Amino acid sequence: MEQFLEYVEKHQNDFVERLRKAVAIPSVSGDPAHRPDVFRMSEFLVDELKALGAQVETRDLGKQDWHGKELDLPPIVLATVGNDPKKKTILVYGHYDVQPALLEDGWNTNPFELVEDEKNRLIGRGATDDKGPVLGWINVVEAHKALGIELPVNIKFCLEGMEESGSEGLDPLIFDEASKYFKDVDAVCISDNYWLGTTKPCLTYGLRGVSYFHMKVKGPAADLHSGVFGGTIHEPMVDLVKVMSKLVDHHGKILVPGIYEQVRSLTPEEQKTYDNLAFRIEELHDAVGNKINIHEGIRETLQCRWRNPSLSLHGIEGAFYNPGDKTVIPASVTGKFSIRTVPDMEPEKVTELVVKYCNEEFAKLGSKNQFEVFCTHGGNHWLSSPDHPNYVAAAKAVETVYKVKPDLTREGGSIPVTLSFQEALKKNVLLLPMGRGDDGAHSTNEKLDKSNYIQGTQLLGAYLYEVAKIEL
Amino acid sequence: MEQFLEYVEKHQNDFVERLRKAVAIPSVSGDPAHRPDVFRMSEFLVDELKALGAQVETRDLGKQDWHGKELDLPPIVLATVGNDPKKKTILVYGHYDVQPALLEDGWNTNPFELVEDEKNRLIGRGATDDKGPVLGWINVVEAHKALGIELPVNIKFCLEGMEESGSEGLDPLIFDEASKYFKDVDAVCISDNYWLGTTKPCLTYGLRGVSYFHMKVKGPAADLHSGVFGGTIHEPMVDLVKVMSKLVDHHGKILVPGIYEQVRSLTPEEQKTYDNLAFRIEELHDAVGNKINIHEGIRETLQCRWRNPSLSLHGIEGAFYNPGDKTVIPASVTGKFSIRTVPDMEPEKVTELVVKYCNEEFAKLGSKNQFEVFCTHGGNHWLSSPDHPNYVAAAKAVETVYKVKPDLTREGGSIPVTLSFQEALKKNVLLLPMGRGDDGAHSTNEKLDKSNYIQGTQLLGAYLYEVAKIEL
Repeated sequence: MEQFLEYVEKHQNDFVERLRKAVAIPSVSGDPAHRPDVFRMSEFLVDELKALGAQVETRDLGKQDWHGKELDLPPIVLATVGNDPKKKTILVYGHYDVQPALLEDGWNTNPFELVEDEKNRLIGRGATDDKGPVLGWINVVEAHKALGIELPVNIKFCLEGMEESGSEGLDPLIFDEASKYFKDVDAVCISDNYWLGTTKPCLTYGLRGVSYFHMKVKGPAADLHSGVFGGTIHEPMVDLVKVMSKLVDHHGKILVPGIYEQVRSLTPEEQKTYDNLAFRIEELHDAVGNKINIHEGIRETLQCRWRNPSLSLHGIEGAFYNPGDKTVIPASVTGKFSIRTVPDMEPEKVTELVVKYCNEEFAKLGSKNQFEVFCTHGGNHWLSSPDHPNYVAAAKAVETVYKVKPDLTREGGSIPVTLSFQEALKKNVLLLPMGRGDDGAHSTNEKLDKSNYIQGTQLLGAYLYEVAKIEL
Repeated sequence: MEQFLEYVEKHQNDFVERLRKAVAIPSVSGDPAHRPDVFRMSEFLVDELKALGAQVETRDLGKQDWHGKELDLPPIVLATVGNDPKKKTILVYGHYDVQPALLEDGWNTNPFELVEDEKNRLIGRGATDDKGPVLGWINVVEAHKALGIELPVNIKFCLEGMEESGSEGLDPLIFDEASKYFKDVDAVCISDNYWLGTTKPCLTYGLRGVSYFHMKVKGPAADLHSGVFGGTIHEPMVDLVKVMSKLVDHHGKILVPGIYEQVRSLTPEEQKTYDNLAFRIEELHDAVGNKINIHEGIRETLQCRWRNPSLSLHGIEGAFYNPGDKTVIPASVTGKFSIRTVPDMEPEKVTELVVKYCNEEFAKLGSKNQFEVFCTHGGNHWLSSPDHPNYVAAAKAVETVYKVKPDLTREGGSIPVTLSFQEALKKNVLLLPMGRGDDGAHSTNEKLDKSNYIQGTQLLGAYLYEVAKIEL
């Protein structure tokens, strides 16, 4: 391991060059004009991996229906490095597509040209999400090949090109290959999230789920003129806004009865895990761009993000939404809201409670309009444990590289692939981020600090040494 | 007058041909591609009026800024027929532009080809709104010229080509010409609205005003991910929906304190005017396409449309509005609502009450977001009197032509030009509709019953005879 860490330290510039080449390929999966670039990016990875001696296969996912136009889906790149049955096999997942980025969005430099600034930040689209981490794994393989030493484990890569566009086609492949390509996998490591703050590495062991709802109120057969009909008919917008206003209070408390009965109680042990996290409330202010936090304390704030449910109102479909004024009574309006779910909430039960409550609240209005509320999609929450050997190994690797114990974090959002791997492979999944909390993954001027890239590469390698030693 | 009425009866087909020519010109003011057709329509009218011996002028209104593109505004056509200082001068207003119409919108026939169906309905865009009425006035002039008899009054025409697009440029012209071109006007007659129902003519003596409001809640600097931030910050949408839900109850009652104190009381005399109106609640059902009326009674329904204020929620700007699901916390959202105003509400006072109440309701939320509510535009209500000689004359004309006393109606919407003429000229304005309540003015298969066109032409002429006799 020492040799490896040293090698990485010495070959920083080579690794930055590799990232430069990757960032230069604008593999925006959400823009059909860039679809050939997404393919080009998959070929780049295939070439890099083959050059390092990996066995590489690509899996064709077929076609995508893009607003009526057929587009070829970029392939899943599956690569195997090492095939020693005496070694553990670690599955590493990453994605090679990126979010859209245009100079005119507010980038200070060309988003597809990697720039190192005076603070040694590597700026470019995909630097941190997720090209840096993907190349981190490749850097690890390269270092070992260059040093002529064997990897402590077998690695299986699973790299997708549609993560920023709904991971189309990935889930069926995972379940399909669970007993085939992935059958020897002992543990999974995903590096596609971020440190809690900017100073301390973390391991992430939990994610909230999400249940998305549509609440539809239908009235007139067509939009009406508010001058002619205002005051004489039940307006769908009035009904909708009234029911939507009953969903959550201004302290973020969900008003649907029965929701909190499903939430796992906070034990004194869990409470303790919120001590000493590298997070300041100012980091929330910075991220939000305003001081509109509900809770003053870090502990309460993070618990509300990680382990408590929340309900957000996203918008309304069917109503007037343009700038300016329009005196319309919308005929049919659909309110969109979602609930972030946590253990031990069950999606079916959540839907049942929401539907019952909303129907009751609508009935109270005495409106003659038609009302319907339903769940459009749901993804379950996910919770692992920092006590699992896979995590213990990662924690040791953090201590080796960063000389500090990692923060043990959860996240408020979802990373659906986490749950898919866990369910399909029945193996532990570890989220081991490379970048910092302020990297601006989907934003302008996305960056990955050079130190995070280099030490992150060391961390990924060190983790493989630690997980090789431990009983999973 | 007898001669005139007979002439109209006999020359129905000629008048229908005139309407056919007018409908064939797709003078859609809202579509830049049709702007030359709007000009063509103005030329058609100029030619028709000149051929009848009118003195015609057109007024150039300059340019329109259409989404950054400069378009020429169609002219106002001003025409004078008769110049006898011993006669009264009646100003007639109409518009020669029309709403957009495409066969694929659901028209059964080409919208710009006048078709007479088996029920003798003249179907075509603009038939009733407002080419039929405008040509009705021209038919009156033609009949007199053909008969070689003098008109009982001098007529001044004011015909605009931008009514369906906000009447751009009209108001300044009216106020400019009040003491010039319009200086001898004794009364104004506008034929640009509709019968209450389908069986009985009406005179319209009142319109509601409108005050339009924007309610803006600002929170984060940019849209946020609901997974990462849900439950930890005050969400603008939650605040907005809560305040919007407090504006009106489900019976259409406005909840802003002080509003109803401004509404003129219903006297027993006014109550009586709601007896025997030619309206059935089924006509509301048909118009709305659903049975979602708040009130069962005709009297209460029409009072809520005509003489009571109402509040409608139109939509939200800044929130998610597309189909599908998006887990966004919108950073800044603006709720749009408007209040229809009636005598004796004052727009300034309405705004004051709304702002005060909304601010109070927002303050109750204890949110850290920024809140602002303001009136974006207002138009005052308008109320004339059916006892005014101008109306008495029109009522006599209705009895002459239709052998029935007209309904005396008000309307729920606004026709801003009504108030402009009244304020600029200080003369009585009469709304004397030609078409029926089911003409579908802005809808597909717009029609004007042939009988309404022909008897309407007689009505407009008869009105001129009656108003010539009466003391204004």
